[in-house]
Amino acid sequence: MKKQTIKEVLQDYKKVLHHDITVYGWVRAFRSNRFIALNDGSTINNLQIVVDFENFDPEIVSKISTASSLKVVGEVVESQGAGQTVEIIAKKIIILGDNFTEERDKTILQPKKHSLEVLREQAHLRFRTNLFGAVFRVRHAVSFAIHSFFNKNQFFYINTPIVTGADAEGAGEMFGVTNFDLNNIPRDEQGDIDFAQDFFGKKTNLTVSGQLEGETAAMGLGRIYTFGPTFRAENSNTTRHLAEFWMIEPEVAFNNLEDNIDLAEDFLKYVIRYVLDNCKDDLEFLDKRFEEEQKSKPEKDRAKEGLIEKLENVIAKRFKRVSYTEAIEILLISKENKKGKFVYPIEEWGADLQSEHERFLVEKHFECPVVLFDYPKEIKAFYMKLNDDNKTVAAMDVLFPGIGEIIGGSEREARLDVLKTKMAEMHVDEHELWWYLDTRRFGSVPHAGFGLGLERLVLFVTGMTNIRDVIPFPRTPKNAEF
Amino acid sequence: MKKQTIKEVLQDYKKVLHHDITVYGWVRAFRSNRFIALNDGSTINNLQIVVDFENFDPEIVSKISTASSLKVVGEVVESQGAGQTVEIIAKKIIILGDNFTEERDKTILQPKKHSLEVLREQAHLRFRTNLFGAVFRVRHAVSFAIHSFFNKNQFFYINTPIVTGADAEGAGEMFGVTNFDLNNIPRDEQGDIDFAQDFFGKKTNLTVSGQLEGETAAMGLGRIYTFGPTFRAENSNTTRHLAEFWMIEPEVAFNNLEDNIDLAEDFLKYVIRYVLDNCKDDLEFLDKRFEEEQKSKPEKDRAKEGLIEKLENVIAKRFKRVSYTEAIEILLISKENKKGKFVYPIEEWGADLQSEHERFLVEKHFECPVVLFDYPKEIKAFYMKLNDDNKTVAAMDVLFPGIGEIIGGSEREARLDVLKTKMAEMHVDEHELWWYLDTRRFGSVPHAGFGLGLERLVLFVTGMTNIRDVIPFPRTPKNAEF
Repeated sequence: MKKQTIKEVLQDYKKVLHHDITVYGWVRAFRSNRFIALNDGSTINNLQIVVDFENFDPEIVSKISTASSLKVVGEVVESQGAGQTVEIIAKKIIILGDNFTEERDKTILQPKKHSLEVLREQAHLRFRTNLFGAVFRVRHAVSFAIHSFFNKNQFFYINTPIVTGADAEGAGEMFGVTNFDLNNIPRDEQGDIDFAQDFFGKKTNLTVSGQLEGETAAMGLGRIYTFGPTFRAENSNTTRHLAEFWMIEPEVAFNNLEDNIDLAEDFLKYVIRYVLDNCKDDLEFLDKRFEEEQKSKPEKDRAKEGLIEKLENVIAKRFKRVSYTEAIEILLISKENKKGKFVYPIEEWGADLQSEHERFLVEKHFECPVVLFDYPKEIKAFYMKLNDDNKTVAAMDVLFPGIGEIIGGSEREARLDVLKTKMAEMHVDEHELWWYLDTRRFGSVPHAGFGLGLERLVLFVTGMTNIRDVIPFPRTPKNAEF
Repeated sequence: MKKQTIKEVLQDYKKVLHHDITVYGWVRAFRSNRFIALNDGSTINNLQIVVDFENFDPEIVSKISTASSLKVVGEVVESQGAGQTVEIIAKKIIILGDNFTEERDKTILQPKKHSLEVLREQAHLRFRTNLFGAVFRVRHAVSFAIHSFFNKNQFFYINTPIVTGADAEGAGEMFGVTNFDLNNIPRDEQGDIDFAQDFFGKKTNLTVSGQLEGETAAMGLGRIYTFGPTFRAENSNTTRHLAEFWMIEPEVAFNNLEDNIDLAEDFLKYVIRYVLDNCKDDLEFLDKRFEEEQKSKPEKDRAKEGLIEKLENVIAKRFKRVSYTEAIEILLISKENKKGKFVYPIEEWGADLQSEHERFLVEKHFECPVVLFDYPKEIKAFYMKLNDDNKTVAAMDVLFPGIGEIIGGSEREARLDVLKTKMAEMHVDEHELWWYLDTRRFGSVPHAGFGLGLERLVLFVTGMTNIRDVIPFPRTPKNAEF
């Protein structure tokens, strides 16, 4: 790339000091007809452009306004003012394109503060704000760290199918995919919908998980991971749910449950460390924002730690590993449970844990990330390995402060007969998953994996609270704008 | 990761020589009741395990067969035989799971050669073959190189939506996404389908491109790229088309057409160099396979270069940059055109170029990758920048030997009035793309980008010829198995 970004100019200013350079960007602010704060998206920091307005064409100066796009040629000098090391003394300014200020003032680009709700309605413009610039740069860093971690550890990236004929996993409600003209759906002789005439020759859906296909890949390539979109057609209008979200699912041949927990812990710590090391400016901004937010809350609801402090603490300690059975014992005798403070009181072993219980364990009892394992088989999926107690399965959930479950995974059931029995018990169609069962027929091996929702992790790292604010164009009930 | 992969053992054998180690894998071959070729997917190379069968439980030895899964403990020694540096003298062998050899012999896992068609029908098992192991390891390397290139160059990864309400781009036929019960589709008072009652409250489709949303992100973050699945509901049963494929779309604020061509060339060369440097063993295997394939062809159809040679040549030379107008002149006076050898003869300026013309330019005329630019506006999309001649747009296509178009892109039309006129001419709904037009209203800037089909590039790098063989689970008309 030949063009210098503002990030490069600010970072390596010694290389360009007292030289003329060319920079490009958008005006974030224009003070006193003299000081332009220019931003090009490469960093949260603006480059100050000093305009000696008496020496410029007044028509050009009059067009410089918030959101204007400029090309600036000028000399890099040490800055007189506070807040920046260097600035540019403009010699030439070119207005790059239209900026209709009257219309602009009806958008979030007008120079005042806007609520997150309003910013969300203009998701195509929010990339230009400090907050969303920071969030999406951090999201990039999280994604890149994920690929880097797996690549370093000899995992292969596998693209599992998005459109799928399998709807057996039961991870959630699915969206249908069809090429039919909905006004004219073909019927067979019995009067049923004739899916044989649809594009794929069968009923198809959007995937809810790439795990099962991922397992088949791991049975040949050893260590694989997916990183792709998954879908839930659930009518959940909450701050934690999206109809379309990105999931990362590693799967490792020869790994058992303990290896799987080790992998999850190493993985999360690597990614968070990477973001701390590579997104300093953005995190400092988000950290300050987080602190401000806390001030507006009642004291009992305030976070105990700052954002960066929280991230540092999470990676400093070993995650606490606790069996489901131990967790139930802790919950049963907790003051919260005895005093009826849980919405769902814990009555006995076998109860499904709710977010309130997970957060009690993480935030109050252990005060660190917790890995729960060996859950009752009834509350977990069919493919999880049955333990020798015949009551629990080798499942694991990683619980994080403020978020609850951030990773869910398991060692998989590698024994064909046990798997078939589980599928029958749980009404999973064996014939539809013939290919999945094949992996247990031919050289079956112990293996394990987990799923991470990318947006949950980005929420955690950025300190944002609504999942719609950490994905560029959120898809939720009644909302597919853009 | 605590477990050693076979790749690590073979690469760093000096660290483990004369030590006992534990390895895991699947049996690729078992010769003379003595020599096991063990593979764990980490590399195309097998690790030889020497079994002194007289000292082993005959029941275990009898279970060792092609596709069996093993855990082996043994000493690493220098190999006596040819073909490997080290081997393992087995001390302990554990059979890890079932391997039903009778059923296995009805699958592609039986020890004999199978056609690519048969392998495709058992896509869940083909990861275990040498060929598909190599293809999917190379696919991983290509993907990782793409992320690395963009990260190094300060691009941010953006996830554009998969389910979209916009169907204005017209890049191809779209799949519908719905939550309706197709047996009971709600109607409004006029008797029309009431999409307001569908999950997203409107008619939605699977995306054909993330470009338009990507442009809005580039207008804030500067340099972005997408890497995600895209869809075409086209009934094309060819070796070059998939209904679901992965696309990479960078978009760069402040770039013009020339910058865009430079970026495409740097990008492709970086990725190919990375694969050459990081997939040596797999490429050597694919190179030999490619050579064998050529032998079975009539001499005139044989490739002039070997696979690795082709890759080295592509990155050695500067891509030839040729305007569409020059290309037409070359084609018009070519022997092929005059002698009627093209299925679609070139008659005049304005003709759309077919694959046969592109391949003539690349393979016969220039004998190197070619970048064509400045195409007639009538044959290109509405968002491409209109040149001053008022006849052509600032489009570019990168053409590769054997593949034809591998990248298509353009400088975008940044002028609001010109863009609106183009949209009206091409019947693109302005109201539906209100958000896209906003990027031209507020600080519009020159910008440019392109699209790369991941599978096309993997085809080129692996020397495979059917696009269904470079994606794990291909989606094509009447086919959505797995």
